[in-house]
Amino acid sequence: MATVGLVEYEDGNDEVKAVYDDIKTKRNTDFINNFWKALANNPEQLKTTWEQVKRVMKPGKLDSVTKELVYIAVSVANSCEYCIHSHTASARSKGLTEEQYNELLEVIGLAHHTNGLVSTMQVEVDEVFKV
Amino acid sequence: MATVGLVEYEDGNDEVKAVYDDIKTKRNTDFINNFWKALANNPEQLKTTWEQVKRVMKPGKLDSVTKELVYIAVSVANSCEYCIHSHTASARSKGLTEEQYNELLEVIGLAHHTNGLVSTMQVEVDEVFKV
Amino acid sequence: MATVGLVEYEDGNDEVKAVYDDIKTKRNTDFINNFWKALANNPEQLKTTWEQVKRVMKPGKLDSVTKELVYIAVSVANSCEYCIHSHTASARSKGLTEEQYNELLEVIGLAHHTNGLVSTMQVEVDEVFKV
Amino acid sequence: MATVGLVEYEDGNDEVKAVYDDIKTKRNTDFINNFWKALANNPEQLKTTWEQVKRVMKPGKLDSVTKELVYIAVSVANSCEYCIHSHTASARSKGLTEEQYNELLEVIGLAHHTNGLVSTMQVEVDEVFKV
Amino acid sequence: MATVGLVEYEDGNDEVKAVYDDIKTKRNTDFINNFWKALANNPEQLKTTWEQVKRVMKPGKLDSVTKELVYIAVSVANSCEYCIHSHTASARSKGLTEEQYNELLEVIGLAHHTNGLVSTMQVEVDEVFKV
Amino acid sequence: MATVGLVEYEDGNDEVKAVYDDIKTKRNTDFINNFWKALANNPEQLKTTWEQVKRVMKPGKLDSVTKELVYIAVSVANSCEYCIHSHTASARSKGLTEEQYNELLEVIGLAHHTNGLVSTMQVEVDEVFKV
Repeated sequence: MATVGLVEYEDGNDEVKAVYDDIKTKRNTDFINNFWKALANNPEQLKTTWEQVKRVMKPGKLDSVTKELVYIAVSVANSCEYCIHSHTASARSKGLTEEQYNELLEVIGLAHHTNGLVSTMQVEVDEVFKV
Repeated sequence: MATVGLVEYEDGNDEVKAVYDDIKTKRNTDFINNFWKALANNPEQLKTTWEQVKRVMKPGKLDSVTKELVYIAVSVANSCEYCIHSHTASARSKGLTEEQYNELLEVIGLAHHTNGLVSTMQVEVDEVFKV
Repeated sequence: MATVGLVEYEDGNDEVKAVYDDIKTKRNTDFINNFWKALANNPEQLKTTWEQVKRVMKPGKLDSVTKELVYIAVSVANSCEYCIHSHTASARSKGLTEEQYNELLEVIGLAHHTNGLVSTMQVEVDEVFKV
Repeated sequence: MATVGLVEYEDGNDEVKAVYDDIKTKRNTDFINNFWKALANNPEQLKTTWEQVKRVMKPGKLDSVTKELVYIAVSVANSCEYCIHSHTASARSKGLTEEQYNELLEVIGLAHHTNGLVSTMQVEVDEVFKV
Repeated sequence: MATVGLVEYEDGNDEVKAVYDDIKTKRNTDFINNFWKALANNPEQLKTTWEQVKRVMKPGKLDSVTKELVYIAVSVANSCEYCIHSHTASARSKGLTEEQYNELLEVIGLAHHTNGLVSTMQVEVDEVFKV
Repeated sequence: MATVGLVEYEDGNDEVKAVYDDIKTKRNTDFINNFWKALANNPEQLKTTWEQVKRVMKPGKLDSVTKELVYIAVSVANSCEYCIHSHTASARSKGLTEEQYNELLEVIGLAHHTNGLVSTMQVEVDEVFKV
């Protein structure tokens, strides 16, 4: 149960409806996921966030799947259950294969592992990395 | 200053020297960074970790740069300064361009942003993401 | 399901009952939330923690709602689901409006965002901030 | 040392200069802190982030100091050294007193403490908090 | 619901079955917990991880319960609900008493508390700790 | 540089001096580390925190070194550089050997690793762990 109510399409104001419509069009679906319905309690933030997501997550010099993998990695380290689920689903819908997922899992595990080792030993940054 | 001493090549035992030699060969450099020198206080863990890094970070179904980006993303969320510096250097040495770096930065910023929003509102995972 | 049992009023020893009674009086309610029931497995820690919460969270140079907002912000970054729910409820019961909640959400989102950017780029602290 | 270069005013393009000018005007200072100089490697992100900071951090239903306290709380939990320093300086410049700072410190300490207790015991959210 | 399917014994390949058999033998149980069933989608990682767990968690210069307490402490700070539950159960099965558990809880709470204080104040490391 | 000044013995009020004297006596040293000097800006919090540290960290059903290891593990996951340095020094002064330190490092590394794996896959808690 969220700390805020979820705003359904029919209960949204015009600004909310416009964002929902845009989400449906851009994603070619009728489904609006809970994150947007929760954000819609503040229509301005809904719009700002959606515009930001569209701009940042579109394919650029990094492809869409790579961007989703970075998103998942951040969400895992931040323990954001919702974000992990939604962006794993998104990565798969954009073409992430199970073999790639397995490699992602290995890299995330290893990165956490060495982060822990480095943090425990408080290893100083080599000068060569600072340039 | 690390919480452990750094083991230089000439002070390492045969196991340490063998790993250092392998690092130099695989990376085509004479430089051993501090992480390995700190780990070398426990030669077995040095060897285990290096073998794991070699196995996981080599190009596979995900390319090397993508793996480095995931590594950076995890390290940022875990606030591992050393890891951020070393893997950013590594990603660049493997071909990450500044334009790609800028996109990485945008995705990491956005992911943290929405992680914070979702966590504050405790949004429930949509059923559709659970399949 | 918690990793410890919950101690109900009738099962608590005198020290536990005294704390529960004080909670009920101070909060003007008959409701004891699960956090205290879990802590009550160690009556000394129950008492110490409750005394600390009373002392720290009472209005001072910062008002009660502001203190709750700080509490929520910490809990979000630490991904403490229980704490987010209980302190959001508490902030609202102390007068937090939905408009203020929306602004809280914006600040938390933005702070996470820029934390991520700064951490990725490892920006050095300006000298002027160090005085 | 940051992972990116810092863009000084004279080296920025027109978009960068415009943002720097706006920062100077809005803050009534000639000082541009390192965060903006680092972001300026991507002028679009510089502009987007500055617009967001201006919009979110201006006084609203929550006053400016309260917003800074929330920012500090998030930054502490995320271990963002730069952000802690810059927003503590900012909060003080906006009127945070040392007595208020001491109370902030107490709340942050307590919140971390109880976050740790709750997380260890995995306390379940009371039904009453979910409405 | 996990983001991957769980591999039951009868659905595993020979490598998976061999690891499951080893887990059952070493732990003297017929029960395979979900973590291994999720990892088994990548038999190589299943095997690598299990070998690592066996090697690291066996009694050495630190006894098994102490190792479990460290594991719990890390998992709490990382908000890994599954890990907290499984390693608390494991610690108890290896002999952790409720009195010891209460002390663990106190130390974890205190450590989070002072971590928060130190991070807020950005206390500099004393020279004497650096040797 | 901390965000607050450090209070030296001669500048402290009577309450501060009493705590400093107690620290010196209990630890059999003339050295007061920076954490206490920073906290001393709020004498009440200095006293409260010191009393808590004394009570929690004294040998009980868990010995002093084990408590320090838990403290280190929490501090690593929270990226508290100061805390890692000070408690590693403390653990060593209480008898932690380098062989034990190496095992601590292995457990911390492994715990972070599996935390990352579990969080990525969002493994559900087995029913058997919930009792």
